[in-house]
Amino acid sequence: MARVYNFSAGPSMLPEKVLKQAQAELVEYGESGQSVMEMSHRSSWFDAIIKETEASLRRVMQIPDNYKVGFFQGGATQQFAMVPLNFMATGKADYLVTGNFSGLAAKEAAKFGEAKIVASSEDRNFTYIPDVNAIGYDADASYIHICQNNTIFGTQYAEVPQVEGIPLVADMSSMILSRPVDVSKYGCIYFGVQKNVAPAGMAIAIVREDLLGHAAASVPTMMNYTTLIKKDSMYNTPPCWCIYMTGLVLQYLEKDIGGLANMQRINEAKAGVLYDFLDGQEFFRNPVEHKYRSIMNVTFTSPSAELDKKFCAEAAAAGFVNLKGHRLVGGMRASIYNAMPAEGVDRLVQFMEDFRKKNA
Amino acid sequence: MARVYNFSAGPSMLPEKVLKQAQAELVEYGESGQSVMEMSHRSSWFDAIIKETEASLRRVMQIPDNYKVGFFQGGATQQFAMVPLNFMATGKADYLVTGNFSGLAAKEAAKFGEAKIVASSEDRNFTYIPDVNAIGYDADASYIHICQNNTIFGTQYAEVPQVEGIPLVADMSSMILSRPVDVSKYGCIYFGVQKNVAPAGMAIAIVREDLLGHAAASVPTMMNYTTLIKKDSMYNTPPCWCIYMTGLVLQYLEKDIGGLANMQRINEAKAGVLYDFLDGQEFFRNPVEHKYRSIMNVTFTSPSAELDKKFCAEAAAAGFVNLKGHRLVGGMRASIYNAMPAEGVDRLVQFMEDFRKKNA
Repeated sequence: MARVYNFSAGPSMLPEKVLKQAQAELVEYGESGQSVMEMSHRSSWFDAIIKETEASLRRVMQIPDNYKVGFFQGGATQQFAMVPLNFMATGKADYLVTGNFSGLAAKEAAKFGEAKIVASSEDRNFTYIPDVNAIGYDADASYIHICQNNTIFGTQYAEVPQVEGIPLVADMSSMILSRPVDVSKYGCIYFGVQKNVAPAGMAIAIVREDLLGHAAASVPTMMNYTTLIKKDSMYNTPPCWCIYMTGLVLQYLEKDIGGLANMQRINEAKAGVLYDFLDGQEFFRNPVEHKYRSIMNVTFTSPSAELDKKFCAEAAAAGFVNLKGHRLVGGMRASIYNAMPAEGVDRLVQFMEDFRKKNA
Repeated sequence: MARVYNFSAGPSMLPEKVLKQAQAELVEYGESGQSVMEMSHRSSWFDAIIKETEASLRRVMQIPDNYKVGFFQGGATQQFAMVPLNFMATGKADYLVTGNFSGLAAKEAAKFGEAKIVASSEDRNFTYIPDVNAIGYDADASYIHICQNNTIFGTQYAEVPQVEGIPLVADMSSMILSRPVDVSKYGCIYFGVQKNVAPAGMAIAIVREDLLGHAAASVPTMMNYTTLIKKDSMYNTPPCWCIYMTGLVLQYLEKDIGGLANMQRINEAKAGVLYDFLDGQEFFRNPVEHKYRSIMNVTFTSPSAELDKKFCAEAAAAGFVNLKGHRLVGGMRASIYNAMPAEGVDRLVQFMEDFRKKNA
């Protein structure tokens, strides 16, 4: 069959051009006589791949020189433990809970110290982001943790906390590379790659140098940022294929899209089409405060759970798959990451309009 | 260029047929309209893949019903921490050190309890395996840990420790699926997949049920076997592509090779060709006690470091790559895992004989 429009929250679509390139060189990469999946991670072939992938990420995100980049296994969930195990020097950290994953991050951190929930938007089912300038941060916190885009609830920060002397740590799994970010505002940025970057099986962390070197000796080796980064992410065999795919996607972002400012324009246009449609009728509704609407994950409901179900089934049959909302929210969710073509969103909106007419 | 014979210790060769299948379905898997790399891990498509992969592993290895199978990230190195964090109920465990990785496993375990080195073959640079029946095991040990095939030193156990009431935990990274194994002799078998199974980025553990459920609440979620296995390896997004590739390789083992007994015959024949050659001349030498010679990793040296270097360079130019031995041993190492064709070994031996004649 033809390729579908996959609105999955992650893993999610990859650019078709990238998939075709990976396919073309899968059995033999360049003149190596091997698949990337077979290469020794110590070979000059793979060394060139990992170095160029990191260099590419640094160029695309304009990462300052005093930040290190590491490729890790275990996804963002493993980062939830690594952040406190490596950075909670005072035994305390402040957590903002704005959805499911930020809540899980706080819960995991509480195993290793005092993870204080200084703000939460649970009171209105996470449909907004608390005012980051009105929060009473702990002067003794080792860091402030946020999840900058909330995949399940479809919200994003309009502004991030900036407190003198307290590093900001951000989970950017569902918004990384969707637009430019000022890395210097953060002590650490981490993200699972399976939404906007590469196939599942890797997280990347960007860590300000001065935060490294403070983990206790009892931290498991595979959770010690310093050890792993010192070995250039090759303390043990890294997830080579994910690194290679990350490199291809970054190349595509640089050469075909023209960088993150362009990517942002494209993403805002796509999200605009969907939100404009949602705001122009009353059959489908999006519950999020406008200021905090995510440009990556757009949630909406129809008038009833039965119609939601009918909508998802008919959409899937028409080639729009994985539109079912998360069980914590219900309804529908369209995840429109970088690789979702504008055409996919345009066609979805047309489909929604047709469905509305038939079922209103 | 043509595909090379890749003697890398890992990542290493995959069956060409499997690579071609992965290539053919990379952009669109079956009728899904998606790449496996883009699929939601909660989709029915991926659910079928992970279930069939586990079922296939259970059939091929004849895993008894009272064992659970889990797919994890972080490679065997992460298992080095997970084993003590989950199984060291008495705060003590016995470690046999027969090479580099078993030493690292013991060192990691010492972070979390008393990891007693009850035997070591370091006295003769790990060229043999200690007599497992002559070791004074601690009656209070929570488990006995071994690395069953030593990748760097080219040794394997001829017999494994069996102590009433103390579970045996084995790192099988470099021998898994190379021959039948009686799983019921073990409390836990774990392995990184990047040598004999799939591309790097995953470890698999096979755990006897009664060992689960005893980890402390403070263990990081991503290191808790019980939590991850209870969620069928989908507590968070798993390394989907590695799981898919594992499934393809297992299918190949079942259908094309005809199971592990056949695989063992093939592997023993390949290793036999190489060892017979090594024993039939005096230019190249293998230092390992015959009884403990690995059928996966064959180490050898020429008369001098200069000749070793010359050999590796000329071999690489002739299409035999990654033959350089590990720095801890020097010389050469031919890793001849499942996917190395018999022809690759035959040609290597011919090349070695030619080199010997020219340089003896």
